[in-house]
Amino acid sequence: MPFVDTIRAKREGEALAGDEIDAFIAGVTDGSLPDYQIAALLMAIVLRGMTAEETATLTDAMVRSGKRLDLSEIPGAKVDKHSTGGVGDKTSLVLAPLAAACGAIVPMMSGRGLGHTGGTLDKLEAIPGFRVGLSTEELRAALRSVGCALIGQTSEIAPADKRLYALRDVTATVESLPLITASIMSKKIAEGISGLVLDVKVGQGAFMRSEAEARRLAESLVSVGQAAGVKTEALITAMDVPLGRTVGNALEVLECTETLKGRGPADLTDLSVLLAARMLVLAGIAETEEDAEQRVRRALESGAGLERWRQIIANQGGDPRVVDDHRLLPLAPLRHVVAASRSGYLAALDAGLVGRAAVALGAGRTRVEDEVDPAVGATLQAKPGAQVDAGDPLVVLHYRRERDLGPAVDLVTRAIRIDDEPPALRPLVRAQIAR
Amino acid sequence: MPFVDTIRAKREGEALAGDEIDAFIAGVTDGSLPDYQIAALLMAIVLRGMTAEETATLTDAMVRSGKRLDLSEIPGAKVDKHSTGGVGDKTSLVLAPLAAACGAIVPMMSGRGLGHTGGTLDKLEAIPGFRVGLSTEELRAALRSVGCALIGQTSEIAPADKRLYALRDVTATVESLPLITASIMSKKIAEGISGLVLDVKVGQGAFMRSEAEARRLAESLVSVGQAAGVKTEALITAMDVPLGRTVGNALEVLECTETLKGRGPADLTDLSVLLAARMLVLAGIAETEEDAEQRVRRALESGAGLERWRQIIANQGGDPRVVDDHRLLPLAPLRHVVAASRSGYLAALDAGLVGRAAVALGAGRTRVEDEVDPAVGATLQAKPGAQVDAGDPLVVLHYRRERDLGPAVDLVTRAIRIDDEPPALRPLVRAQIAR
Repeated sequence: MPFVDTIRAKREGEALAGDEIDAFIAGVTDGSLPDYQIAALLMAIVLRGMTAEETATLTDAMVRSGKRLDLSEIPGAKVDKHSTGGVGDKTSLVLAPLAAACGAIVPMMSGRGLGHTGGTLDKLEAIPGFRVGLSTEELRAALRSVGCALIGQTSEIAPADKRLYALRDVTATVESLPLITASIMSKKIAEGISGLVLDVKVGQGAFMRSEAEARRLAESLVSVGQAAGVKTEALITAMDVPLGRTVGNALEVLECTETLKGRGPADLTDLSVLLAARMLVLAGIAETEEDAEQRVRRALESGAGLERWRQIIANQGGDPRVVDDHRLLPLAPLRHVVAASRSGYLAALDAGLVGRAAVALGAGRTRVEDEVDPAVGATLQAKPGAQVDAGDPLVVLHYRRERDLGPAVDLVTRAIRIDDEPPALRPLVRAQIAR
Repeated sequence: MPFVDTIRAKREGEALAGDEIDAFIAGVTDGSLPDYQIAALLMAIVLRGMTAEETATLTDAMVRSGKRLDLSEIPGAKVDKHSTGGVGDKTSLVLAPLAAACGAIVPMMSGRGLGHTGGTLDKLEAIPGFRVGLSTEELRAALRSVGCALIGQTSEIAPADKRLYALRDVTATVESLPLITASIMSKKIAEGISGLVLDVKVGQGAFMRSEAEARRLAESLVSVGQAAGVKTEALITAMDVPLGRTVGNALEVLECTETLKGRGPADLTDLSVLLAARMLVLAGIAETEEDAEQRVRRALESGAGLERWRQIIANQGGDPRVVDDHRLLPLAPLRHVVAASRSGYLAALDAGLVGRAAVALGAGRTRVEDEVDPAVGATLQAKPGAQVDAGDPLVVLHYRRERDLGPAVDLVTRAIRIDDEPPALRPLVRAQIAR
């Protein structure tokens, strides 16, 4: 069947057959399909959608565009967590050591930050010497020795996604439930895991702005994971305010380390524990939510998680002394305090705007090829609900270049809202989706 | 504004601003926009549509991608006719000489056949020596000397359309009212004409299958023509049955010559006269439809049209003796008669299937790069409404290669329907659209 007929079928709103989807992804992978035909089909998919069955088939074809890792010879259940991206969303660095300390095997492949959201790889690389580019053999060795590896996607994982994503970025075809689902899930399924917890973010700092959208995405992701034989569940969590109190790569590493020492902010600690507990349940290590949470809390309180974090860092070439001496992390030379303009209650601290402020300082990327500055970012001195007096410091910006400061201050200033009455605070976890 | 934002805006169903459309066509023309971004926008336009204003702006930008011919120094009103394409649709070769004989100036740029529909250029090239590739200067000289030139599009006419059309063909983005409108009208407006009659075909052998679709296209074309200052009107005419009695390039030239001698079939004669008459009204040569039609009939009966046809052929390097000696036209060596399988009334002769039969014999193209055989085709011995006896010849196939015959016979056989009762015949002209 000529590919133009596949494009036409999707344009007309028809469901594509399995062999059409296979031919599409094969042509993406081997380069035989031209970019313009791929782009036309992607736009037709954005506007016409895909059925759950098509989405599962697309995901499967993308998994098969590369290798699905076989980790069966490594003892233990392999589980992972994936977040759809937020601001200050650093739970991976907390929950991966905790879950590994509790006996789970965590082969976590993450991405880099783009736009206002941060990326786990950028955070890890703020640790001097830390290597995220492990080979498959190094990954296996890491899983055997410390039960966890925090790495980038290897080239054999879902190569079709790489080409598709690059095209989607420049053709306004990113925002599509089936395409987002296939992109996320193909990479996770190819990791060789048996269980996956998804943290679907919703709010001002997330890609999904409404709970209805987030729920549709969560259901799509869970459905495709289950279809591929991976026990998958999702939490929908709030991303209206940055998670924890730091935004920026080295600052976030520091905060994660503090959290593993039991001194982290409540929201980051609680969400990391909850997600790690779900991983233990999916791994079959704990039978109940309560049991799982107790195990994770114990690993946190005993220092077992912190010790595992140290081992993971050392194992990937990083300097484990950063855990004890924060000054080994890169620090921005300059600071600026954004203070409360009036007294009242801090009612909002818009995560999207704070994220954009961090990008303005150099902490993130507006284009894939941008370099990030690990040292810059923001620390939040107060979170919504706090009572503040005029002049109280609310956000400290850590910066390097004077010219970056003005735009960042503007963005943070717009992010802040102070009201006379205490705001109604909503729970961090909005919903849980499982099948 | 980054082009990806233009794509996103159209994806979201927004109307594009004039400068966005201008930037789009400028990027298509100068090659600065990559094919994949163009393809994504084209698909978004197919699925989200364009307003009448956007369509007019797009058309105007495409006209300005090249030159709009200035024929003002040539005396007389320049008028043209354009058909959306049909089977046996050969009116151009009849009406252009007739309109020119009545004093209109006809700078007609036509296209080649593609799919089941024929193309005027292919028909003209069946005449030994006939050159359709005139330069602009040769075009001007032709208009001065014989009042008419029948040529292909010059490279300075709407170059953006060439790149867009090539992409649309391979990305399933041909079927779009605004894109079809801009493609047709940009080329016609750039011809430098002041009046245009559109023959929008509807039926089995046309791109538009329903009268509602044809009416929407006609209204869109007329609206854009008027907006560009070209007096434009449209006829919607039936294309359920091939027009006239021949399909195939040399066969159609022969039929047109016979028609200019007053011996043509009624449907071809009447439609050619009607369209030529509308051209005279738009040219301001005749005030009323009746006056215009009388002038055209007179040019036909007096032989002035035939004489003009002879001059046009000679002026473009063709052998004018074909007008008197049909044996100078290429003739296929073999013939096959498809006969009536039963007695009754010929109820249908599906134009789409007959057109495909002619293509199967080599008269047309399935791909742009295919060569056509001018000599092959089909002659219809009966048209719907005729009473036939079993064994009566219905269609004669003129062919060259034995291997082509089987598929052509199959297609023609499927095209024929014989009923016991005489069919209800509908008028050829279904509607007239003007503003």
